[in-house]
Formats: sequence, structure tokens, C-alpha cells
Amino acid sequence: MSPKVLTSPEQLNAIYAQIKPYVRITPLMESAYLSELISGKVLVKPESLQVTGAFKFRGALYRLMQLDKYQKKQGVVAYSSGNFAVGLAHAGRILGISVHLVMPFDAPINKIENARRQGASITLCHDFQPSREEAANEMAAILASQHEYVLLHPFDDLLLIEGQATVGVELQKQLFESGLTCDSMLCPSGGGSLVAGCSLTFSPVINGTEIYAIECLGYDGMNLSLREQVVTRAVGGVSSECDALLALSPGQAAFDIARITAVQGLSVSDSYIKKALRLAFEELHLVLEPSGAIALAAVLAFPEKFHRKTLVVIASGGNVDLNKYKSLVF
Amino acid sequence: MSPKVLTSPEQLNAIYAQIKPYVRITPLMESAYLSELISGKVLVKPESLQVTGAFKFRGALYRLMQLDKYQKKQGVVAYSSGNFAVGLAHAGRILGISVHLVMPFDAPINKIENARRQGASITLCHDFQPSREEAANEMAAILASQHEYVLLHPFDDLLLIEGQATVGVELQKQLFESGLTCDSMLCPSGGGSLVAGCSLTFSPVINGTEIYAIECLGYDGMNLSLREQVVTRAVGGVSSECDALLALSPGQAAFDIARITAVQGLSVSDSYIKKALRLAFEELHLVLEPSGAIALAAVLAFPEKFHRKTLVVIASGGNVDLNKYKSLVF
Repeated sequence: MSPKVLTSPEQLNAIYAQIKPYVRITPLMESAYLSELISGKVLVKPESLQVTGAFKFRGALYRLMQLDKYQKKQGVVAYSSGNFAVGLAHAGRILGISVHLVMPFDAPINKIENARRQGASITLCHDFQPSREEAANEMAAILASQHEYVLLHPFDDLLLIEGQATVGVELQKQLFESGLTCDSMLCPSGGGSLVAGCSLTFSPVINGTEIYAIECLGYDGMNLSLREQVVTRAVGGVSSECDALLALSPGQAAFDIARITAVQGLSVSDSYIKKALRLAFEELHLVLEPSGAIALAAVLAFPEKFHRKTLVVIASGGNVDLNKYKSLVF
Repeated sequence: MSPKVLTSPEQLNAIYAQIKPYVRITPLMESAYLSELISGKVLVKPESLQVTGAFKFRGALYRLMQLDKYQKKQGVVAYSSGNFAVGLAHAGRILGISVHLVMPFDAPINKIENARRQGASITLCHDFQPSREEAANEMAAILASQHEYVLLHPFDDLLLIEGQATVGVELQKQLFESGLTCDSMLCPSGGGSLVAGCSLTFSPVINGTEIYAIECLGYDGMNLSLREQVVTRAVGGVSSECDALLALSPGQAAFDIARITAVQGLSVSDSYIKKALRLAFEELHLVLEPSGAIALAAVLAFPEKFHRKTLVVIASGGNVDLNKYKSLVF
């Protein structure tokens, strides 16, 4: 699964061209509040406005497009706590590929319902050992072997990473058209597919940009792995509102890319999430889910780190339950 | 102020090129829920994501750019209940032109505060006779003559309309790039500058598209005027959550264009606004203000009218107070 050579700009452009008819071009929005906070410029790219409400749709769609004829007929199975599930279900519907999902039984109800509405068949997983992700993955593997479905991993897959990389390709075009460059890019990171994908376009070794994997404290597997130079497991156990960022370790493929491209890790406590959600609501008129706001939260938590820089911050998802949102924002 | 000939596509493209460096390209987002409701396709263009949270910034910026050197030095004064005020204040800040605003004392506090934060000087108007708009306009005229400010009207101004028209120009490019065409376009309408502007690109006499001015019941001056073929005053008096759509009559310039381009009027009661706000939140992850959601509300109110059509619906603004939003959506 891991890259021997990094995907080239030409390959990334071809990937973007393949999915472009189905994805939304998400805008670039300056946050005056955050710009002032760092005495620089903060541009937000809201992938919460992407089809199915998160960047995950890009990777899911590209991944399904790469199946061969036989695999497309067999259908796929994957586990996911939410946004990948909804994205995969919708991509399957577009391409006429049947999608089976294993979701943790405590996944947000709106995400489970959305995936079901897209026509996916859902199996809820009640086992949390050794972790909710691993238990669900095992169940997906069993379903795959029983029914000859193609087993997909929700993030540890080079093709998925290349699909998420189109966020970076699109951003590069937008910055070019606006005559802008950025010093640093901040990506929410659970399994690491978004940050790894974007680092193929924006990173110290590619174009001289700093790139950060922003993780939840306690679930900062990418940060630890980059420090140890080998995939390392975070401690977990902390309660967090960021339901989409609870993977304990980054995917091997994502980690391998992130190491080569010199991604940096940064962990943020949940205490900045509420403020980030409210900022997105009031200033940018964006509904974000807690996980989707963590890169914005990083700017609030570490303004001095980004002093006088031009940042692009990815807001990664907006699939939040009304009641959860109410309790956090109002 | 009224047009003898309609602004040509070439002129509109030139206007768009002039403001493009400062405006955001707002995305096109299909609402699966509304598409299913009408058995067609409903594309939402959220101008709530525009700089200062509403399309008004486009017109305000273009209007200020057209001032001569002396006028730019003198500064401008205008009345507005909100979004034009914030847009004008921000445009003035960008261009270094001083902006003075008269706002009704009961304008949403977030809009007053936003305009002030942009550096505009604000005078609150406590007079509501003969209407809050007319009283504020008179106060603005007095300030203009006292201080030699340039008096701007918040909507009845051909240059403003041409600025708002860039929503249509941008949309045309987006539809073309996506290989789409639309049957009908729905624009929120208070004074009518947005719908008049968009009708220069999308209307029966220009490209064969139907175009609708969506108004609040009781404040449906454009609808009545189009029926009577002369600017006609709505009755008003009804209470409405749509604070940005309370003009009783359309602007003369907007009406003149709308009559020539064959705009149609459609009035919607407030009862559909809540559902539209919630739909925008849950499905599209957009924060809309009540006025900004009225064209979405029109699809909910009259699905049979749009059966099997491809619609573009403008969501025009997102500047809503947190507590007001909470009371309407949660």
C-alpha cells in the first residue's frame, strides 16, 4: 500500500479531472477574526460544503472508480464511524456499486441515517476491543470473506489518499488564480489520509509550505508517529467531541507519505472546539462538526506559532447532529 | 437612474472582472432533499458565504469603485437595515473611502456591530414614519447635504444592480463549466436589486430562463408592481422574521429592468422560513439568516410549480444573531 515514489503533480491533476464532474469546488474564505489574531492571513477551505458534507467523498469516489469490472459487480465493504461511510455510500450510488458498511453502534445517528438513505446496507458493531475501529474492521473483514465483497480500509489506502489529495490540487489552483501563496497548511487528521494527500502538493519537500496534521489530544497518533519515525499508537481513553478523529494510529500509507513530505504534528485540546464552532457560525456562516473545526481550533490555541503567516485551514466536515450542535454552540 | 438599454453581457463581464479580485466565488450545491421534492434538480448558490455574509457586498463595492476622485474623498452616506450597510462599510475600508450609515434602531444588533467594526460611522434612526426605510433615507439625505457626502440608495441605483448582477455572471460560468442549464432562477427580493441584476443574464427575454422575485407576504411590492405594470406599494404591517426584505416598494431602476426582462413575482409566508433554515443547516451545512432562506422556502411552499425543473436558488445572506437563530431552528 505504501508509496515507493510520491504521486506526481501530473498524476494528481489526472485524478482531480476524473472526480471533478462529481465534486463541489469548495470556496476559500478569509477569516478576518483569525487573520487579525495572528497578524497575518487565514484562509478557510470548507470541505463541510463538499458533497455528503466532508472531504471523504473525494477519496471514496476515486477509490470506487479504480475497482475492476468484477469488483464493481461484487460490491464493497468498509468500516467507518461516519463521514467515510456517507461518502462511500453516495459514491456507490452514483457509480452503481453496492456498498456495505460496518459502523460503531455509537456513531452519530445522523451519519448512520445518511449512509442508509444513500442506499448502503449497514451493520452496527457493538464490540469495542481492542478499539472501536479495530473491532469494526474485523467485522468488515468477516463480511468481505463471507460475501466476496471487496474490503476497503477507511483511510489506510494509497488510492484513497490520492483522492483526498484533490483538496490540495484544487487549493493550488485557487491560490494561483487569486495571486496568493501560503506559508502553512493545517489539516484535521484522524487516520491521516487528508494531510498525507494534501502534502503531495503542499509540504516542505514539494513546494516549501509547512503542513500540519492537527489531531485531538489523546488521539495524536500521527504526531507521535512522526516523532518516533514509526507508526505509533496514541493512548486514547480521553473523551472527545471529535468523533471523526478517534483513530489511535495513522494509516501506514498516510504515515509513510507524511514522513517523506515532512508533515508536522500538532495536538489540540477539545477546549478550543466550541470557540472554533462559534467562530465558523458567526463569521463564516458555516456549520461545522466538532472534528471539522479542529484545524480552526489550532489557530485559536497557538496564534503565536503562526504569527504573520498566510495559512490555509481545512474545515473538514459539517455532519453534526442538531442537538449536539446546540449543546456546544448555544 | 433607469435603463434605456439593458446592460450587455460584455459590460457585465467587465463589471465582474473589476470586482472579482475582492469577491468570493460562491459554490453551487445541489440539495438532494429539494431535488427529490420537485422530482427535478435544485442547485443552491449560497451568497451567505460572500464577503460580509451577503451578495450586497458585490454591488456596494462596484458602486464605490465608480465614484470620481472628489466623491471618493468626500465619502458616502446611505441608509440600510443591515447587509448593505456591512457590505458598504467593508467596501469603503478596502477602497479607503469613508462610509456613514443610517440604520433603523431596531436593525439586528449583529449587523450594526459588524458595520461599526468595519470602521463605518453609524447613526441610528428612531423614526418609523411613513416607513422605517423612508425615515432613514430622509435622515441620510440630511447628513449628505450637511457634510457633502455622496448620498447612496441601498437598492434603487443602476450601478448597484449591475454589481449584484455579477451573481448571475458567475452562475452562468459555473453552469457552463458543469455542462448544466437551468429552467428557473429564484432570487430573494426586497428592493429588487438582486433579481433585476440576475435577470440581465437569466430571464425569458435574455436566455429563456424563468426568473422569480421571491418576497415576503405583505412586503411583496415587486410582485404587485409587476402585476400593475407600475411601481406599487405593498401593504406591510405584517410581522416577519425577514428583516432584510421589509421594503414596501421595489426600486424604480430594479422594477424597470424586471418589467423588461419579464421577472415573475412570488410571495411566501414566514411559515416556511423555519423549515428552510433547518434544511440549510442539516443538509447543506449553511447558516442562513431568515431573509436569506426565502427562496429556499419558496421551493418548499410551491413544489408543484417547479415540478421536474432544474432550479437555481439564491441563498442571499447569513448574518443572523445567534439567539434569533436558536429560537427559529432549535
